[in-house]
Amino acid sequence: MQPHSDVLARIKPPITPALVIRRATLMANLAAMQAACDAQGVRLRAHGKMHKCSTLGRLQIAGGAVGLCCQTVGEAEAFVHGGINDVLVTAPVPPWGWLRLAALARLARVGAVIDSAVQAHHASMAALAAGAVLDAYVDVDPGMGRAGVPPEGAGALAQVITGLRGLRYAGVQAYCGHHQHLLPAERAAKHAAWTQRLRALVGELRDAGLAPPQVTGGGTGTAALDLAAGVYSEIQPGSYAVMDVEYGDLGDLPFAPALFLAASVVSARHASHVTCDAGHKALHPNGPAQRVVLPAASQYRPMGDEHGAILPPGGAGEGDLVWLQPGHVDPTVALHDAFFVADEDGALERWPIDARRSS
Amino acid sequence: MQPHSDVLARIKPPITPALVIRRATLMANLAAMQAACDAQGVRLRAHGKMHKCSTLGRLQIAGGAVGLCCQTVGEAEAFVHGGINDVLVTAPVPPWGWLRLAALARLARVGAVIDSAVQAHHASMAALAAGAVLDAYVDVDPGMGRAGVPPEGAGALAQVITGLRGLRYAGVQAYCGHHQHLLPAERAAKHAAWTQRLRALVGELRDAGLAPPQVTGGGTGTAALDLAAGVYSEIQPGSYAVMDVEYGDLGDLPFAPALFLAASVVSARHASHVTCDAGHKALHPNGPAQRVVLPAASQYRPMGDEHGAILPPGGAGEGDLVWLQPGHVDPTVALHDAFFVADEDGALERWPIDARRSS
Repeated sequence: MQPHSDVLARIKPPITPALVIRRATLMANLAAMQAACDAQGVRLRAHGKMHKCSTLGRLQIAGGAVGLCCQTVGEAEAFVHGGINDVLVTAPVPPWGWLRLAALARLARVGAVIDSAVQAHHASMAALAAGAVLDAYVDVDPGMGRAGVPPEGAGALAQVITGLRGLRYAGVQAYCGHHQHLLPAERAAKHAAWTQRLRALVGELRDAGLAPPQVTGGGTGTAALDLAAGVYSEIQPGSYAVMDVEYGDLGDLPFAPALFLAASVVSARHASHVTCDAGHKALHPNGPAQRVVLPAASQYRPMGDEHGAILPPGGAGEGDLVWLQPGHVDPTVALHDAFFVADEDGALERWPIDARRSS
Repeated sequence: MQPHSDVLARIKPPITPALVIRRATLMANLAAMQAACDAQGVRLRAHGKMHKCSTLGRLQIAGGAVGLCCQTVGEAEAFVHGGINDVLVTAPVPPWGWLRLAALARLARVGAVIDSAVQAHHASMAALAAGAVLDAYVDVDPGMGRAGVPPEGAGALAQVITGLRGLRYAGVQAYCGHHQHLLPAERAAKHAAWTQRLRALVGELRDAGLAPPQVTGGGTGTAALDLAAGVYSEIQPGSYAVMDVEYGDLGDLPFAPALFLAASVVSARHASHVTCDAGHKALHPNGPAQRVVLPAASQYRPMGDEHGAILPPGGAGEGDLVWLQPGHVDPTVALHDAFFVADEDGALERWPIDARRSS
């Protein structure tokens, strides 16, 4: 493959700031993850919270993924209306969301995680009202404190779910967000400890007559460990498709950067820097710093909501394009209307980020 | 007026996370700024980069504003198509933007700032191609280093503009973004120094036969100083309409908080905190911390892209609403699809954030 900088230099997006995906790299990343899952007989349910794009999701499913994950009710709706026939909402659903998810379950297979008996009853009532069935997963907290029951509470909640009409007990979810960005040695150690606990939990559930049909979880950082662990029947990685600075800098992941941001130099009146049209509304500051790809050896510094400095200018003048790699992909994608997907010759196709909704 | 917490406790948005505007406070803020402008005979051109909402913009114009400012070509298009007949793009336009702005100038009065002769020529060619006229303002850099010519370069650029067909020389813009959030004493001192330079520049332009038809600039933080300075014919404040933590904490601005974010508690399994459905994708982290309004005396901590912790829970349980005030309004609004505008009795109206575009 040619270096990214050579390909990017051929691309002229019609607007800026613009998110550009290098198609060849995207396709290689998708194929690599699918092959790794297939080799272990583990289902891939790619996470759509990262890309919010039905077009990309349909590609993942065409390649072998069983469906998509999403994080919000709005994403689930957009994905189903965008042609995705199997979605799992991987975060607890707020009360107003259950009727909408249940209505959606008339159109597609829809799952949701649940971390309390109250949620299970909400889900059941909504499903009955809609005349639908929802896949219900017990959300197990691997120690993040964000959502999910502790492992010792999973059996009781599974029991509640199996007793409620409108719900299909689909298994357990255990998502270790706090392991994804650890350096390799610490990541492996913490993953091993958690996996031991999860394996025991699955045994306990089986002994109680609540064998989980699926054990779902995992992410881009832990995917190799998840696949080798022998306990997950399904993994949920998202960022692997296009990567970002944060995942790339871990150094051990077999995926290449495929997502870049093009910005225009809109003011060039100083020797120290030029000003481009990408600020906090185009590059989300959560995560590591945005990395400049072109011009090489320059740095990016935000200059407010709509502007950023490229310093030193590195030869970039007024009207020129500059190229960056996002520090953290998910929240930056959520700021944009579309991806421009680039062939190696620079030809572009526009993919709407159609699940970009705030609720 | 009742305390915000009393009114918010009556509001039940149909989705979460949801941005809610207290209408009575919004209207009082709009009226206060308009009255202050009218008292000095200065035009109000409210900045739409903050709200990205034609409905709110039309209210500002109905109240007396001459038009809106915006920061991007996409915002300008959305505003004109949303019924705003006079827009000014207050940031340098990237090369691809001129033809679109010129086309828009067939539908409405459209202005843009310019900081180089190359941009002036682009603008002129685009206007000629569209058969339109663009209002062209010389962008003067008050020392931010982001965009704009130094004051001593304004005359030469004004001369270029006056010589180009398709452009109407509309004056100068001087926006002091770096003064807006200073504490009162430092703000006044820096504003006075800059105003002295700006007044001299206007005299120099007048002596050169380039008297600026408009001198536009200013923001919410400096509005009182801008109006008293006697040099601005038009000011561009945006945040005054709904305020945020950052502006409110300055302590001297005569506007009240009108914008809040409602989130649902989606997990409540810990004594230390509850988890709500608002994270980095609902509350932009740039600026000061998000402030919790309800429950009183709690704090907010982001827990990833879609979740946050409210700590301590302060009585909030699963399914309850919690209420926050955004730290920095502009980038947070850009994350949302709509405002829910609340009457005092809790009745809601939905206003689309229709200029929410990434380019």
